[in-house]
Amino acid sequence: MALKTGYAGETCSIARALELVGERWTLLIVRDLFFGITRFGDLQRHLGLPKAVLATRLRMLETAGLVDRREYRPHRADYTLTDAGVDLWPVLHSLVRWGDEHAAQDSPTRVYSHAECGGELDAAGRCVSCGSVPIAADVVISPGPGASGADADDPVRQALQRPHRLLTPLLP
Amino acid sequence: MALKTGYAGETCSIARALELVGERWTLLIVRDLFFGITRFGDLQRHLGLPKAVLATRLRMLETAGLVDRREYRPHRADYTLTDAGVDLWPVLHSLVRWGDEHAAQDSPTRVYSHAECGGELDAAGRCVSCGSVPIAADVVISPGPGASGADADDPVRQALQRPHRLLTPLLP
Repeated sequence: MALKTGYAGETCSIARALELVGERWTLLIVRDLFFGITRFGDLQRHLGLPKAVLATRLRMLETAGLVDRREYRPHRADYTLTDAGVDLWPVLHSLVRWGDEHAAQDSPTRVYSHAECGGELDAAGRCVSCGSVPIAADVVISPGPGASGADADDPVRQALQRPHRLLTPLLP
Repeated sequence: MALKTGYAGETCSIARALELVGERWTLLIVRDLFFGITRFGDLQRHLGLPKAVLATRLRMLETAGLVDRREYRPHRADYTLTDAGVDLWPVLHSLVRWGDEHAAQDSPTRVYSHAECGGELDAAGRCVSCGSVPIAADVVISPGPGASGADADDPVRQALQRPHRLLTPLLP
């Protein structure tokens, strides 16, 4: 049975937020953009998505004002989060923490810490060392105790095996 | 084109969390359970969902350990969030705040405040009055400046026009 395609009868902010980011795969694409994966081919390989699906989702995110597309040569583009996209950081981080607590089969695969002082983030996104709540650009991801080994064939997965500051390009 | 039904290649906690709560409508059902809507018919009317779709989502949430189903008479059940479900509060709250900021057409339709002291919650879920981060059961929702008038025919929408503590049954 077809579902309603919108939430017209719903005036709640959660419903409106889900109109934009509640679509299947969309938050995983946003996550990869936080990781600094900027190229279409890298996103596609890392997510294992059909090209057409990734293209549709990126266009939707661009139309919604969450993603900027910058062509660096014909038919080749970089994708980055806009300010509105970056503001999704608390949503992403709270999903990560919930997943670590309730959906993980083992230890966390990634650890999130404060770039400035190295302290890990608590469930509220607060640095346990200095007490501040760093913005996404000041958060470093590192492999956690549950991380699997890097896939030698995949430069994205290899790069994610090293500490990396969110929102900075992962690959040269 | 069919999408992959899982995220088998993805070991990230966000991916694992989305396996459970990233399905269309699921977070809106969880939101209504936070609001204290406990009956199948009330959930169905408030969400405007086909019965079969709501039943499937609730069964999925029950199987995943996020929802408790308690039959109070044959074929009539109450649905409430388990501890793991209640732990989704930061995800819900951060989605609300993002929606208020970036997806709302007007002012917030609902305001979230700390039951104990009445202070509103900031973007990090912190009470602006006393500085604590209240648990969901200590949060009160009230109609915000963007709320539309109650639908006189619908007891759920009527009840949501009054201040109400999260996770307490909305209707007698």
